[in-house]
Amino acid sequence: MKAFVVKSPKNWSIEEVEIPKPKSKEVLIKLETTGICHTDLHAANFDWLVEPKYPLIPGHEGIGIITELGSECKRFKIGDRVCLAWLHDACGHCEFCLRGEETLCPNQNMSGYTVNGTYAEYAIGHEDYVEAIPEGYDIISGAPIVCAGVTTYKALKRSNSKPGNWVTIIGIGGLGQLATQFAKSMGYKPIAIDISDEKCELALKSGAIYAFNSTKINVIEKIKEVTGGGTHSVINTSISTFAGEQGMEILRRGGRQVLVGLPSKDKIGVANLSVSTFWTVLLEKELVGSIVGTRLDLKEAIQYANEGKVKSEITRVIKLEDIPEIFDKLQKGEFLGRAVVDFRKK
Amino acid sequence: MKAFVVKSPKNWSIEEVEIPKPKSKEVLIKLETTGICHTDLHAANFDWLVEPKYPLIPGHEGIGIITELGSECKRFKIGDRVCLAWLHDACGHCEFCLRGEETLCPNQNMSGYTVNGTYAEYAIGHEDYVEAIPEGYDIISGAPIVCAGVTTYKALKRSNSKPGNWVTIIGIGGLGQLATQFAKSMGYKPIAIDISDEKCELALKSGAIYAFNSTKINVIEKIKEVTGGGTHSVINTSISTFAGEQGMEILRRGGRQVLVGLPSKDKIGVANLSVSTFWTVLLEKELVGSIVGTRLDLKEAIQYANEGKVKSEITRVIKLEDIPEIFDKLQKGEFLGRAVVDFRKK
Amino acid sequence: MKAFVVKSPKNWSIEEVEIPKPKSKEVLIKLETTGICHTDLHAANFDWLVEPKYPLIPGHEGIGIITELGSECKRFKIGDRVCLAWLHDACGHCEFCLRGEETLCPNQNMSGYTVNGTYAEYAIGHEDYVEAIPEGYDIISGAPIVCAGVTTYKALKRSNSKPGNWVTIIGIGGLGQLATQFAKSMGYKPIAIDISDEKCELALKSGAIYAFNSTKINVIEKIKEVTGGGTHSVINTSISTFAGEQGMEILRRGGRQVLVGLPSKDKIGVANLSVSTFWTVLLEKELVGSIVGTRLDLKEAIQYANEGKVKSEITRVIKLEDIPEIFDKLQKGEFLGRAVVDFRKK
Amino acid sequence: MKAFVVKSPKNWSIEEVEIPKPKSKEVLIKLETTGICHTDLHAANFDWLVEPKYPLIPGHEGIGIITELGSECKRFKIGDRVCLAWLHDACGHCEFCLRGEETLCPNQNMSGYTVNGTYAEYAIGHEDYVEAIPEGYDIISGAPIVCAGVTTYKALKRSNSKPGNWVTIIGIGGLGQLATQFAKSMGYKPIAIDISDEKCELALKSGAIYAFNSTKINVIEKIKEVTGGGTHSVINTSISTFAGEQGMEILRRGGRQVLVGLPSKDKIGVANLSVSTFWTVLLEKELVGSIVGTRLDLKEAIQYANEGKVKSEITRVIKLEDIPEIFDKLQKGEFLGRAVVDFRKK
Repeated sequence: MKAFVVKSPKNWSIEEVEIPKPKSKEVLIKLETTGICHTDLHAANFDWLVEPKYPLIPGHEGIGIITELGSECKRFKIGDRVCLAWLHDACGHCEFCLRGEETLCPNQNMSGYTVNGTYAEYAIGHEDYVEAIPEGYDIISGAPIVCAGVTTYKALKRSNSKPGNWVTIIGIGGLGQLATQFAKSMGYKPIAIDISDEKCELALKSGAIYAFNSTKINVIEKIKEVTGGGTHSVINTSISTFAGEQGMEILRRGGRQVLVGLPSKDKIGVANLSVSTFWTVLLEKELVGSIVGTRLDLKEAIQYANEGKVKSEITRVIKLEDIPEIFDKLQKGEFLGRAVVDFRKK
Repeated sequence: MKAFVVKSPKNWSIEEVEIPKPKSKEVLIKLETTGICHTDLHAANFDWLVEPKYPLIPGHEGIGIITELGSECKRFKIGDRVCLAWLHDACGHCEFCLRGEETLCPNQNMSGYTVNGTYAEYAIGHEDYVEAIPEGYDIISGAPIVCAGVTTYKALKRSNSKPGNWVTIIGIGGLGQLATQFAKSMGYKPIAIDISDEKCELALKSGAIYAFNSTKINVIEKIKEVTGGGTHSVINTSISTFAGEQGMEILRRGGRQVLVGLPSKDKIGVANLSVSTFWTVLLEKELVGSIVGTRLDLKEAIQYANEGKVKSEITRVIKLEDIPEIFDKLQKGEFLGRAVVDFRKK
Repeated sequence: MKAFVVKSPKNWSIEEVEIPKPKSKEVLIKLETTGICHTDLHAANFDWLVEPKYPLIPGHEGIGIITELGSECKRFKIGDRVCLAWLHDACGHCEFCLRGEETLCPNQNMSGYTVNGTYAEYAIGHEDYVEAIPEGYDIISGAPIVCAGVTTYKALKRSNSKPGNWVTIIGIGGLGQLATQFAKSMGYKPIAIDISDEKCELALKSGAIYAFNSTKINVIEKIKEVTGGGTHSVINTSISTFAGEQGMEILRRGGRQVLVGLPSKDKIGVANLSVSTFWTVLLEKELVGSIVGTRLDLKEAIQYANEGKVKSEITRVIKLEDIPEIFDKLQKGEFLGRAVVDFRKK
Repeated sequence: MKAFVVKSPKNWSIEEVEIPKPKSKEVLIKLETTGICHTDLHAANFDWLVEPKYPLIPGHEGIGIITELGSECKRFKIGDRVCLAWLHDACGHCEFCLRGEETLCPNQNMSGYTVNGTYAEYAIGHEDYVEAIPEGYDIISGAPIVCAGVTTYKALKRSNSKPGNWVTIIGIGGLGQLATQFAKSMGYKPIAIDISDEKCELALKSGAIYAFNSTKINVIEKIKEVTGGGTHSVINTSISTFAGEQGMEILRRGGRQVLVGLPSKDKIGVANLSVSTFWTVLLEKELVGSIVGTRLDLKEAIQYANEGKVKSEITRVIKLEDIPEIFDKLQKGEFLGRAVVDFRKK
C-alpha cells in the first residue's frame, strides 16, 4: 500500500509498504478520508517532549471501511464504516480506564504517534477503540471531528459550563471554530477572541455572540463589560502564554480556563504560564488542562456533526501524495484552514 | 473600650475608643476570645494588593456574647454566644451570594480589613453572617477554627477529593495542621510536606499517613511511589512559588492543587506560579484558588471542632495588650504557632 | 386598593382593602401584571396538605413598580421594576438558605399562600427576594415566567441532563410548553408526551423533536426506539400517578424522573406513585421532586425570556375583576392556557 | 472438578464436572474461597424477574489463583491471586461501559447467573473484569467484600453524601454491617435501623453513632431529633416496602434514599414502594436504585478491606459439600450471618 512515512524527525516521503495484518481484537481499515492535523506535523518533527516511534505513519482523523478482522473481533463486521482517532488503545483496567477517562491511561497508544496512523491506504485499529460512523455522515467535513471536534467538545465538558453561561474561545482556528459551534449547540453563549478580523467574522458566523480582535481592543475590559463581570469559562486553543495569562484575567470570579494546546518542546520555557497566586486565590479562579477526548466524547461529537450542529470548514481536499506539500506550507505558516485527504480521489 | 488600633500602615497601639452601636441587623458582641492570624499583620502592614481601611481594628477569629441588638435583629437574643469571621457581610443578592458562594461577593465586607474587627473588647457583627457557637465549645482552641479552620475545611471541599483519596498538604503551620486533621476526618488519606522535621512529626500526630521533609528527600518521587502515581489533590498552604510548582508535579493524572495563601504585594512578581502548559494539558491537571469559607463551611467546621475531630494547637493565650509584642515577633519570624487573646484574662 | 380576597376556603370576592405599609427590608410594589396560576386556585380552595392563611390575597407571578421602601432597604429605589414570586422570603441562615437552596427553607413565606400575594393593586415584597426586571422585558407574556418558567427551568437543572441528552416532558400545559422551550435552549433534545393532539402540535412548535399522544401509541416502546434505549430524563408536569409510573418506564438505564406537580389532598391516596423496587435497583433509575425555583433560578429564567429564548403563550389578558370568572372556569376545567391580569387595563 | 450444580430451579447437588478451558481473554481460577450470598439462593430458585441459565454453578464472591490463561491474556500471569465478582464481563463499548458504569451494560454477564460462577473448584473469569487481590489480604473475611462490600460501598457513593453527613442504614445484615463500617471510614456519620436489638448492638460496634430498633421506638421522630431535621441519606438494604416508605420519611429536605435490595418476583406486587408525590416534590426528596458495583468500586472496596477499615463478620467457614445444608437453612431463615467456603479445607 501507499503510505506517508516519517523515517526520522523531519524526514518523510511517500513509500510503498506492506498492508498490516490485524491481530486478535484489531481491525484493518481501508481508509476513505483522513484529516491533516497540526499534531501530525509535530509528530513528524519530534516537536513535543514525548518521542514518537520512527519510522512512523502519522494521522489520527481517519474514516474508512473495515476489510479484515482479527481473530477475536466481535463488535464489527467487514464492510462497517468506522473512524480511527488519536487514542488508538488503552490498557482497559487502570483507574483512569475504569472511570471512563482512558485518555489519561499511562499505557495508551496514540495513532500516528506511538503506533502507525492513517496517512496510508490501510490502517490498524482496535475494535474497542474505533467508533462506528453512522449512515449519511459526511466523511470529508466530518474527518476533523474525529480529533479537532472531539478535543473541543471535551474541553467544553471540562469547562463545567452551565446552560446560559458565557464561554470565551481564544483562537478561532480549526479548533476554535468547532468550539464556537459546539458551545452554541450545548446552550452556552460563545464569545470569540482572535487576532484577525477575518477569524472574528468566521466566529460570528459559527454562532459567537461577540467576537473581539485582541490586537484592536482591550478584551479584558470589553469582556467584563458585555458579560457583566467576566466570562464563566475560557476554552483556550492557543499556545501563546500571553493568551493564557489574558485568559485568567477575563474570567468571572470562580471561573475556569481550559487549556487544550500542546506547545512544542523548544517553546517549553516560554510556554509556562505565569499565574498570579493572589488573584487566583482571592477570586477562586481555575486553570485546567484537557487532552483530546474519550470514546464517549467521540461517539457524542460524531452525533453532533451528524445532526448538522457542527461542521468543520475544509479548505482543501487532497490526495495522499499532496501531504508533503501541505506539510511544507503548514511549516511555513502558509497554509490556513483544514485539509482532508480523500483516498477515493484519483 | 480598649482596642488595638492601626492608625496607618505599620503604625499601631492599644487605645481607648468608643463602643460601637449596632444598627438595623447588626449585633454588638462582647468578645471573650479572638485568634491572632497572620492575615491581621498583613492588614496592619498593607501587605496585600487590596488596601484596608485605616484607622483599623484588625481581627476576624472572634468569639463572644451578644450584648446588644440592632433594631431589625430577629435571629439571636442577648446572651447568645456567636463567632465573628473574616466575611463580615455580603450583598445577599448577587449571583455568588445566591448560589451560596458569598466569599466571592464583590460587595463583601471583611472583618478587620474593610470594617473593624475583633482586636477590641466589643465588635459589631451582622446577624446573618455571625454564626452560633454550640454549648460546650472550647472557645480558646476553637477560636482559630473561625478562620484557619474554615479556610482549610473549604479548601478540602474545593479539592474535589473522594473518600480514600490521597490529599497532600504542603506546609504544616496552623493551617496545614488543621487541614491534616480535617482530611483524616473527612475520609481522605493525608500526606504532609514541610521543611522542618518537627512539623512533619506534628503532622503525623495530626493524622497524616506520611510526612516528608522536602529539604531531605525528593518528595516528587517519594509521593509518586507511596501513592502509586501521585496524590489526588494538594492543599497548598504555603505561598512559596517553588512549593506551588512542586505541588503540580506531585499530582496524579487528573489531580487538583488548591492554593489558599495570599502572598504580600512586594512578592507578587515572584509569587506568580510558573505552570507548564504541556504537562497540564497532557495529564489534565488542575490549579485552583480557595478563599476562606462560606457561612455553611463555618457552621460545619465548628461542628467538626465541637465533635472533637479537629483541634487547633494554641501556643500562647494572651491579653489584648500583648498583641503588639506578638506582632513584632510574627514580623521577625520569631513566633511560631497560634496565639489567642482571652479577654476574660486579667 | 382593590384586591381579590379569599376569606375562607372557596369563598372569595373583589374587595376594597388598605394598602399595606412596607417595613424594614420590605418594598411596596404597584402591580402592573400578574399571572393566574393553578396554584392560586389550590390556595383559595385549601386543596393541599398545608393550610394557607385566611383571609388571603393569592397571586405569585407579579410584576410591578416599587413605590415605597421600608426603612432598611438599600438594594432598590422607588421606580424600579421588580417581580414578586412564590418564595416571598426565607430565613437566610439555615443550611438550605446558606447553600442557595432557599426553596427548602423550613421558615419560608410563600406569596399568596402564607402571606398576601399579587391579586391586588399593591403587594409587599422583601428586597432580598424580589428580582429586578430588565429593560424591555415583556411584562405580559413574561409574567408566568416568574412561576411556571422558573419551576420548569429549575426542574431541568434538577434533571442532571447533559447537552445532547433526551429530555421527555410529560404534560404540555403552561409548564410543559415552557419546559420544552427551555430544554431546547439548554442544549437538550426535548420529547413531549400529552393526551391531546393539539398539545402535541404545540410542543413541536415549541421545539420538541418528537411529540407523542399517549392515548394513541405505546409511548414506552416508541420512546425507547427513537432514543435508542430510553430518555435520559423526564420532567413530569402532570400529577397523574399513571403518568408518573410511565415516566419511570421510559427512562434510560441510570435515568432520572423529576416530578413538579403537587396533587390536591383529596388525591393524596391515589397520588402516591407505585415504584418498582426491582427495576429501580437493577437499572439504577432515579425519582426526585423539584419545588419552584431559587432566586438564582428566577434571575436566570428571566434572562432566558428576555433573550427571547422562551415565551409563555397567554390566552387571555384580563382585569382584576375578571379573576372570579377565570377561577370558576378553571375549576370546571373550561379554561385552558394562561391568563394574565393587566392592572393598567381599564 | 467438584461443583455445586443447579440443574433446574430448586434442584441442586454436588457433582463432578469437567474443568472449563479459558478462551481468548479468559483466565481459569482455582478457587481458594467463595462467599455464600443470598443472591445465589435467588438464582438457584429462579426467584427474580430475570431467568438465570440452567444448569448453573452459582457463586460470585470468589477468590483464587490463576492457573491457566486464554490465548489473548496479557494482564495477569499464572499464580496471580484474583477475585471473581458478580459482573463477569460486559460489552466494553456501550455508553454505560464507556462512562465507567458497566454494571448498567445491557449485554453484561453475571457470574453464577448468566454464566457459571464460583461454587466449584475452578471458575472462568475475564481478565478485564477480575480484580487483583493485594498481598496480605484476608481471603476468608475478605470474600464477601467482593459482593456485599462493593454493593454497599457503591451505594454510599450513589448516596451523594458529603463528609459529616448523616447516613442512615436500614437493615443490619451482612450488607448493613459493611455499609456502617464503610460510612464511618468515608467520613459520614452512620445511624442504624434494625428490628433486632442484637443487630443494633452490632451496628454500634461497627461504628454507628446511633442504632434504633424500629419495633420499639418511633424512628421517624427519633432520627429527625438526633440529626436536627432528618438524615441526609438512607442506604436501604432491606426489601421491605414498609422500610422503604419509612426511608423516605426520615430523609432531611433534599435527602436521598438508595435502594440496594432486589425483591423476589413473587413479591413484586407488594415490593412496589408507595411514594408520596406531594412530599417528594415539596421537600425535594430523591429515591434511587444502586446495583452492585463497578470494577473501580471493587478495586477501592478491596483497598478499604486491606487497610483494615472494613471487615465482614464470618459466621461459618465451610466446605463446598456443605452448601446444600446452608441453602436449606437460608431458605428456612435458620441461618443468620455469612458463610464462606474454604476450598483448602479438607
